[in-house]
Amino acid sequence: MTDPAQLTAWQDRLNATPFAAWLGLALEGCDDTGIIMRLRSRPEILGSPSTGALHGGILATLIDTGASYAVMLRTERSVATIDMRVDFHRPGQSSEYRIEGNAIKIGHTVSTGEARVIDSEGKLVASGRAVFMNVER
Amino acid sequence: MTDPAQLTAWQDRLNATPFAAWLGLALEGCDDTGIIMRLRSRPEILGSPSTGALHGGILATLIDTGASYAVMLRTERSVATIDMRVDFHRPGQSSEYRIEGNAIKIGHTVSTGEARVIDSEGKLVASGRAVFMNVER
Amino acid sequence: MTDPAQLTAWQDRLNATPFAAWLGLALEGCDDTGIIMRLRSRPEILGSPSTGALHGGILATLIDTGASYAVMLRTERSVATIDMRVDFHRPGQSSEYRIEGNAIKIGHTVSTGEARVIDSEGKLVASGRAVFMNVER
Amino acid sequence: MTDPAQLTAWQDRLNATPFAAWLGLALEGCDDTGIIMRLRSRPEILGSPSTGALHGGILATLIDTGASYAVMLRTERSVATIDMRVDFHRPGQSSEYRIEGNAIKIGHTVSTGEARVIDSEGKLVASGRAVFMNVER
Repeated sequence: MTDPAQLTAWQDRLNATPFAAWLGLALEGCDDTGIIMRLRSRPEILGSPSTGALHGGILATLIDTGASYAVMLRTERSVATIDMRVDFHRPGQSSEYRIEGNAIKIGHTVSTGEARVIDSEGKLVASGRAVFMNVER
Repeated sequence: MTDPAQLTAWQDRLNATPFAAWLGLALEGCDDTGIIMRLRSRPEILGSPSTGALHGGILATLIDTGASYAVMLRTERSVATIDMRVDFHRPGQSSEYRIEGNAIKIGHTVSTGEARVIDSEGKLVASGRAVFMNVER
Repeated sequence: MTDPAQLTAWQDRLNATPFAAWLGLALEGCDDTGIIMRLRSRPEILGSPSTGALHGGILATLIDTGASYAVMLRTERSVATIDMRVDFHRPGQSSEYRIEGNAIKIGHTVSTGEARVIDSEGKLVASGRAVFMNVER
Repeated sequence: MTDPAQLTAWQDRLNATPFAAWLGLALEGCDDTGIIMRLRSRPEILGSPSTGALHGGILATLIDTGASYAVMLRTERSVATIDMRVDFHRPGQSSEYRIEGNAIKIGHTVSTGEARVIDSEGKLVASGRAVFMNVER
């Protein structure tokens, strides 16, 4: 269950990240088991001139953000992404996306998180993982 | 050696991709051995409020774009990214970046490409690979 | 719920794969939601002379096998691995491991699967994903 | 250029790793720029009952080993693999393989290496990368 004060604190942090703020990423819920964000599409973030699908780099941004916030919620430390891997399952052609992030393993030095991007019909658009160095804020 | 007409054709294609156009990605050179692009930083694409480093999702975008164009130059077909993996080597804190893309393996159905993002001091900021489905344009 | 005849058929297939047979991989259960295998350790598959931990290449083998069988159970076709990614969470120091495989996305040409390797204390040793080309047997 | 005493010392280390010793991995050359190993195939390490191709888990083992030794040669420290990614380019159907490993980035805490597996006709069978935690021996 989401603690409203915690949600506001993490949304403030997201807003202080220039690219996340430009994208308009909105935190919907968070607890120890994971995090949920929402993104509304906008014309500048499309990748394909013909199909209007979301750019792969935007999907990668959502995976990185979802996985890193899920890890930070657990560690209460900051992270630096060591590496990220994204699987693209189908073109993203919604006006809105739901991002779900979870921690896979919290370690002393290194942690692993995963995230999924789901379109407005509930279909899995992309999923992936990232490994993070835990760093002091 | 770059053929100027070919360079213009591929830059037009890049400009027709909304997110690449918004980023202002510029093609500098291309031949059968690979592709070189350039990106000027802008405030909206930063990731860290404290260090001013480029957002990891932008670096992922550059790896995806560099690798996919290197593959398309060889196949003269279009691609759909199946999956992508990015290693983040150091924070990107330049005003300008050079992106180098190369094909690793061109296959009938699937091709593999790689790319590197290099800062203005010549240091490797990120590198990675992607696997692409070759599709007809 | 596992169908015993199906389990025998898939175990026969595993036994016909020389490296899986040498490892002694045993299928424990399988249905549409996934697959469970078991591996008993043996001296030749250790990686570290000092700690006696399982070799990373063996963990990668378990991820590839768990993910590919989970996909094949759904598609009833064969697969060729396009690429694989493995996260190593802690040293594997059990005498026995449980491998759980699941399909993430079944596509016409390409499918994605994931797997986890769990030690005898229930701890996550490694997890990962692979992308497969669906091929006719 | 390879220093024979160094080559012997690293081969001894490889021989002390049970799974590498069982595979019979032989170090052919090493210097600051990278490492070259050789593997002779054997019936137990095949993956496909029909084609006789090398098992993907063995190719992953070769990528992990090639990349980790290339990093250790530079750092003179030991490593623990954090994660590994392998691209499979074509079936491995040779009696012998050449493995080439190189360091991509040496860091204080974390280093990145890559490796390629080449068949006896000079064709690229698999290539990949791994990220390592640098640890004291």
